[in-house]
Amino acid sequence: MQTLSTHRAFGGTQRFLQHDSTVIGLPMRFGLYLPPEPKALLVYLAGLTCTEETFAIKAGAQRLAAELGLALLTPDTSPRGANVPGEADAWDFGVGAGFYLDATQPPWSAHWRMESYLLDELIPLVQQDTGLAATGLFGHSMGGHGALTLALRHPGRFQSVSAFAPIAAPTRCPWGQKAFAGYLGEDRTAWAAHDATELMRQQSTAPFPHGLLIDQGLADKFLAEQLHPEAFEAACAAASQPLTLRRHEGYDHGYYFIASFVDDHLRHHAAALLTT
Amino acid sequence: MQTLSTHRAFGGTQRFLQHDSTVIGLPMRFGLYLPPEPKALLVYLAGLTCTEETFAIKAGAQRLAAELGLALLTPDTSPRGANVPGEADAWDFGVGAGFYLDATQPPWSAHWRMESYLLDELIPLVQQDTGLAATGLFGHSMGGHGALTLALRHPGRFQSVSAFAPIAAPTRCPWGQKAFAGYLGEDRTAWAAHDATELMRQQSTAPFPHGLLIDQGLADKFLAEQLHPEAFEAACAAASQPLTLRRHEGYDHGYYFIASFVDDHLRHHAAALLTT
Repeated sequence: MQTLSTHRAFGGTQRFLQHDSTVIGLPMRFGLYLPPEPKALLVYLAGLTCTEETFAIKAGAQRLAAELGLALLTPDTSPRGANVPGEADAWDFGVGAGFYLDATQPPWSAHWRMESYLLDELIPLVQQDTGLAATGLFGHSMGGHGALTLALRHPGRFQSVSAFAPIAAPTRCPWGQKAFAGYLGEDRTAWAAHDATELMRQQSTAPFPHGLLIDQGLADKFLAEQLHPEAFEAACAAASQPLTLRRHEGYDHGYYFIASFVDDHLRHHAAALLTT
Repeated sequence: MQTLSTHRAFGGTQRFLQHDSTVIGLPMRFGLYLPPEPKALLVYLAGLTCTEETFAIKAGAQRLAAELGLALLTPDTSPRGANVPGEADAWDFGVGAGFYLDATQPPWSAHWRMESYLLDELIPLVQQDTGLAATGLFGHSMGGHGALTLALRHPGRFQSVSAFAPIAAPTRCPWGQKAFAGYLGEDRTAWAAHDATELMRQQSTAPFPHGLLIDQGLADKFLAEQLHPEAFEAACAAASQPLTLRRHEGYDHGYYFIASFVDDHLRHHAAALLTT
């Protein structure tokens, strides 16, 4: 692990690091904020086009994370430097758009393995390095999809889950359909296992007894076509999964929205992580 | 005035606007955060290479500004689009490096008139538009120089002043010497009127009875060569100007440092602005 930069922040340390990922087969970067007294780990998955720096720079989360004792891990959103032809032609597929799954279709399957990278490599590495076991997961947009699906696909790995404006039913929206067709193939039977709404529909009991928190802006230009929180809400109701879905008048899809409500998310995670 | 974008944030609104500046002779951009209940105006001057967006994105100031009722005005750091030959050749002179003064030397004197722009045009415009009279001024690095010098050069215009890692004695450092030689000419007698330390040395009584607040990181790579807070500190002591100069172990020159202490600056300004 190579430290790229270190910045003192709120009595703790915001670092950006790089390591050679075995799972991805390329160097990968991530951000790690360590509060003065780390008590639990909170992993944030970013949205399309973002990097490991975006949340650290824009969300304003370190202040309360320092107070609560939450370490913040911010992975990158895809492999970089694979040189797959066309990998950077679109902002919603390829570079910056890993969708937090393992691609099964060549040429993407060689490196685009973000689910295994996070679950089997990066998060265990950081848990071991920091000595922090209790771990929460949240994210935004594509990263909200990542948070909900990875938590549902890996029961017991995350003790708290939340999302900002998640792509909550990707099999029903253009972003998800494009990504799943490209990474998983045209056969839609493989898609449901990476769709938070479909995964929640399969639950017979509430998978997150602590409850889920989702914030959604009502001036979000992607809401109607891409996000479908109402579908996820219905699936939660059917599974008796406690869900706090807050709809905010006037708020858009960006980081001013995230910053406005990030404190509530940190407190949501702290309530679960610091008592277990 | 043309609104370029609007983002709801912390119950208020973060806007970015553009207007045709008479003083500059070019379109100029600025940011304006309006809290739910604006009570006073706080102007933030950014550092080298920054824009009207930098503080709004990176400082995390809107949360407490919303709570305190402070509107945040973030001007750009120089004219843009003047097409002066060489204007973008350096990151510490020309575009993004207006140094908050009126250039007297051609070709810069045609457009590089940031002092008159701020004092005679932008700030009055925003005061009138928002109905806010009480106004504070702060800034970072080049903008810390701007905050200290503009407040000293225009007594009574700003009721509260603070700075992060200001260029506190520009006539003694490479950044200031390069800028002043280019904008004001090689005759150094004109320079002292734009040097916070020299201006403070001329005061017979404390110009800011409410006190000044300056934060400085001790891991700031520019501290020894460019900033010279100790010179300003000595000048304040000689003028009986109350100064709280806080030196922070481990903090660098960037926005993680600013974000860590911005709440204290907002409270410093609110204490002066909301009681006058």
